Amino acid sequence: MNSDSVAMTDLSGKMHKPETVCIFGTGDFGRSLGLRLLQSGYSVVYGSRAPKNSLLLPKGSKVMTHAAAACDAHVVFVAVHREHYGFLSSLASDLEGKVLVDVSNNLKRGLYPESNAEYLSRLVPGATVVKAFNTISAWALQSGGLDANRQVLICGDCADAKQQVVDIAQSLGFTALDRGSLRAAAELEDLPLQLFPLWRLPLNIAICLTAFIFFYALTRDVIYERVTNGKDIAFRIMISLANKAFPIVSLVMLSLCYLPGALAGFLQLYNGTKYRRFPDWLDRWMLCRKQLGLLALAFGFLHVLYTLVIPIRYYVRYRINVYTISLVKDNNTYEFDNTAAWRYDSYYSMGILGFGLFVLLGITSLPSVSNSLNWREFCFVQSKLGYITLLLCTAHTFLYGWDRFLKPASYRWWMPPAYMLSLVVPCVVLILKLILITPCVDRNVTRIRQGWERQGKISANGRDTKTNHPLIA
Amino acid sequence: MNSDSVAMTDLSGKMHKPETVCIFGTGDFGRSLGLRLLQSGYSVVYGSRAPKNSLLLPKGSKVMTHAAAACDAHVVFVAVHREHYGFLSSLASDLEGKVLVDVSNNLKRGLYPESNAEYLSRLVPGATVVKAFNTISAWALQSGGLDANRQVLICGDCADAKQQVVDIAQSLGFTALDRGSLRAAAELEDLPLQLFPLWRLPLNIAICLTAFIFFYALTRDVIYERVTNGKDIAFRIMISLANKAFPIVSLVMLSLCYLPGALAGFLQLYNGTKYRRFPDWLDRWMLCRKQLGLLALAFGFLHVLYTLVIPIRYYVRYRINVYTISLVKDNNTYEFDNTAAWRYDSYYSMGILGFGLFVLLGITSLPSVSNSLNWREFCFVQSKLGYITLLLCTAHTFLYGWDRFLKPASYRWWMPPAYMLSLVVPCVVLILKLILITPCVDRNVTRIRQGWERQGKISANGRDTKTNHPLIA
Amino acid sequence: MNSDSVAMTDLSGKMHKPETVCIFGTGDFGRSLGLRLLQSGYSVVYGSRAPKNSLLLPKGSKVMTHAAAACDAHVVFVAVHREHYGFLSSLASDLEGKVLVDVSNNLKRGLYPESNAEYLSRLVPGATVVKAFNTISAWALQSGGLDANRQVLICGDCADAKQQVVDIAQSLGFTALDRGSLRAAAELEDLPLQLFPLWRLPLNIAICLTAFIFFYALTRDVIYERVTNGKDIAFRIMISLANKAFPIVSLVMLSLCYLPGALAGFLQLYNGTKYRRFPDWLDRWMLCRKQLGLLALAFGFLHVLYTLVIPIRYYVRYRINVYTISLVKDNNTYEFDNTAAWRYDSYYSMGILGFGLFVLLGITSLPSVSNSLNWREFCFVQSKLGYITLLLCTAHTFLYGWDRFLKPASYRWWMPPAYMLSLVVPCVVLILKLILITPCVDRNVTRIRQGWERQGKISANGRDTKTNHPLIA
Repeated sequence: MNSDSVAMTDLSGKMHKPETVCIFGTGDFGRSLGLRLLQSGYSVVYGSRAPKNSLLLPKGSKVMTHAAAACDAHVVFVAVHREHYGFLSSLASDLEGKVLVDVSNNLKRGLYPESNAEYLSRLVPGATVVKAFNTISAWALQSGGLDANRQVLICGDCADAKQQVVDIAQSLGFTALDRGSLRAAAELEDLPLQLFPLWRLPLNIAICLTAFIFFYALTRDVIYERVTNGKDIAFRIMISLANKAFPIVSLVMLSLCYLPGALAGFLQLYNGTKYRRFPDWLDRWMLCRKQLGLLALAFGFLHVLYTLVIPIRYYVRYRINVYTISLVKDNNTYEFDNTAAWRYDSYYSMGILGFGLFVLLGITSLPSVSNSLNWREFCFVQSKLGYITLLLCTAHTFLYGWDRFLKPASYRWWMPPAYMLSLVVPCVVLILKLILITPCVDRNVTRIRQGWERQGKISANGRDTKTNHPLIA
Repeated sequence: MNSDSVAMTDLSGKMHKPETVCIFGTGDFGRSLGLRLLQSGYSVVYGSRAPKNSLLLPKGSKVMTHAAAACDAHVVFVAVHREHYGFLSSLASDLEGKVLVDVSNNLKRGLYPESNAEYLSRLVPGATVVKAFNTISAWALQSGGLDANRQVLICGDCADAKQQVVDIAQSLGFTALDRGSLRAAAELEDLPLQLFPLWRLPLNIAICLTAFIFFYALTRDVIYERVTNGKDIAFRIMISLANKAFPIVSLVMLSLCYLPGALAGFLQLYNGTKYRRFPDWLDRWMLCRKQLGLLALAFGFLHVLYTLVIPIRYYVRYRINVYTISLVKDNNTYEFDNTAAWRYDSYYSMGILGFGLFVLLGITSLPSVSNSLNWREFCFVQSKLGYITLLLCTAHTFLYGWDRFLKPASYRWWMPPAYMLSLVVPCVVLILKLILITPCVDRNVTRIRQGWERQGKISANGRDTKTNHPLIA
Repeated sequence: MNSDSVAMTDLSGKMHKPETVCIFGTGDFGRSLGLRLLQSGYSVVYGSRAPKNSLLLPKGSKVMTHAAAACDAHVVFVAVHREHYGFLSSLASDLEGKVLVDVSNNLKRGLYPESNAEYLSRLVPGATVVKAFNTISAWALQSGGLDANRQVLICGDCADAKQQVVDIAQSLGFTALDRGSLRAAAELEDLPLQLFPLWRLPLNIAICLTAFIFFYALTRDVIYERVTNGKDIAFRIMISLANKAFPIVSLVMLSLCYLPGALAGFLQLYNGTKYRRFPDWLDRWMLCRKQLGLLALAFGFLHVLYTLVIPIRYYVRYRINVYTISLVKDNNTYEFDNTAAWRYDSYYSMGILGFGLFVLLGITSLPSVSNSLNWREFCFVQSKLGYITLLLCTAHTFLYGWDRFLKPASYRWWMPPAYMLSLVVPCVVLILKLILITPCVDRNVTRIRQGWERQGKISANGRDTKTNHPLIA
């Protein structure tokens, strides 16, 4: 008896599959969706205004009028631009009781007062509207999820209808995530229109910093020279000034990427628990650490290129030439300075090693690489190696400056050289970190991160989540 | 009553799992497949000629003779080289009604007139043959899909049999895609034997271009010098000539990567609709844009290295030395040329910024990175940033040439310098793009891409699919 | 009748979904898990000591006392630190017959004699314990598996209980892999605590090699100079010596990465079969080839930077200056040496092309890139292009040395220059490969890899698995 029912269930499972799905709209998205549905074992019926003129549809699908197509299927994908939704209200009776899947996106945000899905629901009140697949591109459907986003976000008011769409999404090889009721549709429709939301703050910081350092150096170098000596060295803007701004921005942003972690440690020490929420600004800051770090790397990369191009610059060749000739004329020789040799070589060496580690951090933050690390490995790379990178880059900057901070000539118009400004944040971060890793402080922080609370409350908590906010991940 | 049946179904679902799967062949693939099946909860029986000598099989599996093993299971994986299929015909009666899964690949294309799966089907006519898993490597099975291709392509003539294989693939954590009837098997068997099909055209273009520019520069520089002045400067082939060819190929290929998009825009304007298919050559061109762009980046990378190595070249040091000495001897000085300083520094700066953006484009086209972008972000990076890259690189080349095009000496043997040739395509692309983004043209293109058609036909179409053909993705 | 039962099954499948899952612990992991479960359609009940004080829990979940929460659900996730498991023994009666999912990790290895899951099982003997989800971070749960590890490893003693956890994992969009009985829990708990196990051997090799070459060069260059000429050139440690050690380590490690493959070929030839296991040391060596190759690339990258920085070094500028002045003073001229021009340019060219290909190999070994290649493409890149890279880099080193090996002055204190040592391994590898690709040897190797055995035994094997051990993948 039991085995019989098993067999039946099994069979039914198999007979259940060639379910018919209807697609309104024969555009790229509709075609790609249909092909994928066919490949996953569904029957596909297209609804079209002009069934006879519909070309390029996937082999094995049928084309009918909208009404006839809707008749055959329980789930109807509406792959039509919102502007053309109008015709659907005339099909209201055919769509009664159906599940309408709204896959549409808008071209801009805020074009319409209500989301497309809610508008659809208002047009065809007899049907159940589910918003889904709008974050999946026609191309992702075609490429079969191999190297494309595999996550289908779904929302809707009826659990049963949503479940049917979830089943379809899973059969197609996607992962479905429920995002709540149809009111969430507006949010889902905004997702494909976002433009790097997490990058905005770090980018603004980078741009402001670059502009500030650039004008600071412009004043100190070019304008000062002009005013004081009447010499025009404005050509230095292109490379010399850029190569002052880039490394400074890079170093400051790298340290800004480690500062919130250090602040959070002190805050937890102060609160005596890890269960109090961080202030909002700190939370937001921690969430964009990866972006801060990657921008720092980009600026560091430009700094490397700008530096390596130095010896082929016209101005540099000119200067070396003039210097050599002056030495010859004065019957002088270049005195070899052993300290200078050590200093410059160390300076370059620190910079190269720092940049090498920095590139490693960048590679580790590629999604496919960071996924293959466990959390201990990830922590090790992003925290330990990250701090070593910061240390090397700070040492590189100190060696660059050497004893310049002692020379009054460095303070033109009371402005210290730009590199000195760049050292403030990294030094603060390194000192804070140094305090945090002294044994007695470290013991307390570790205890707190394991769930210990100063007041002695025991709470049953999940695992340590130091890794929740990846440093540069 | 109802709740009872639910429980039963549920139970049956669970009892249904430890299904027995048979594997013929105890090679690496068979062993890896067996291990994975065991890990996913299946029972595994191996069929082997010499069951007693079969070593290294995964723990928990059984080994029997082929006939005995087939008896226990409904699905039989044939993990045997095609050359050894012969023995299967003698098992025809044992395999009657079974689902035979052909996982085999050949070592070369076109070795046999019919696909392995069809041959198998002919050998054992009583069984249902399904082709599957041949694109999955033993290693991908072992590593559990973590960082391996997760897509199982399936074809076969019987929907039921295919569904059973789909179920197994999904239990193993793969995504199954139906590719039609058994006649598609030949195609599936060719897939793992393909060697970069999409790279072929771009690679050929790159090789031809490189060869052409190389011989052009060889004639203009080395042979001309030999013939006119009798000087042998053939040593320049290794770096100077290479460093002429590489940047030119890079720039031309970068613009070739944006040309089809611009052409498509004009074609859509001309057709007045986006629903007419592009000519085949344009389609093929658009499909290999990513490859064109990445090759351009590779050539750009070589150009950067070849350029940075200049100051440590023997020849360059010799030239500088000779020049300095000649200045000393003639009691001359190097006149500082402010324009030259501006020009060279701008030239390097454009190049560095262009290369920096180019590297960014390259990183964004890594599968794991491009998957984490939504289509608007992807468009922004590949289209906007891409055109800025092209603009910077073109400016870099113009600054390199400067007023050289005015000097008759540049036209040796009526051949203009190679860099001039390289500017033709990028300029065309930039001009076309400039036309496309003028407000009035842009409005029309946008309307067309939203589904508007000139004749006023309204058609219900899917979403905008500007992103269908990623630029460099 | 049949269709009725189909409908019923279908319905039951849908009604079965809003299953209630209980989570003990309201820490980060518990909260993230709850949110994800809610998004996937489950009901979530939290068990907490102080239900009224539990904040920040996902909307839609309920909080109760532990006992009340456990009552509602069949599956209970224990998201509590092992140190707090004590309270569970008092809930023994409430947990009778439940499935307890242990998701815990420890902070260090070997803290406890038995695994957390086995300890839990001992504390609550009436419940069935399943170890799962401990390799998934709270962050991976939040980000929805989009760019996170999607593999849930599961172990436990009861197949039914495991299946329930597998079902949950799959609903959440993860892939489940069964790792056997609860005794495997210790192993699973060790996984997130591992620190780059595969990188250890290659890193040690790299460190030892670097130290050896560094001290060798230190003795030959700095100490020799000091002892013989009394000159202090210790400043050369920072760049010159580093730039001797890095390229040598890079070349040796690149060849070490191809040596085991060549050895394996000879071993298969000697054994006359591919079915005999390789000795353990060779197996271990082959498994870390990717890591060897990537470390070699890192050292090569540093070598490139150290080389490009040469012309801006103080010492180099000093030397050039002194040389020019001495030429002027002696009224001498720099004789142009055509051979030197050829030699240096070829030397740089080989190096650049070798490095370019090396970077390509590195990019191809990124998980997301290597997944998009079929095995033939992967073989082509890692084997063919890999050997060309090795060949170019070896040629680069030979050109660097040129005729230095003939000059007695090169053998200070009977120590040959370090670069000569570095050529031994690459030459051996290239010679071995040369032998393996001679037609007659190649034919035999290919036959063996296709499953042929010398004794004439026919065995039914799986596919060729040359790709099992990706070269640098």
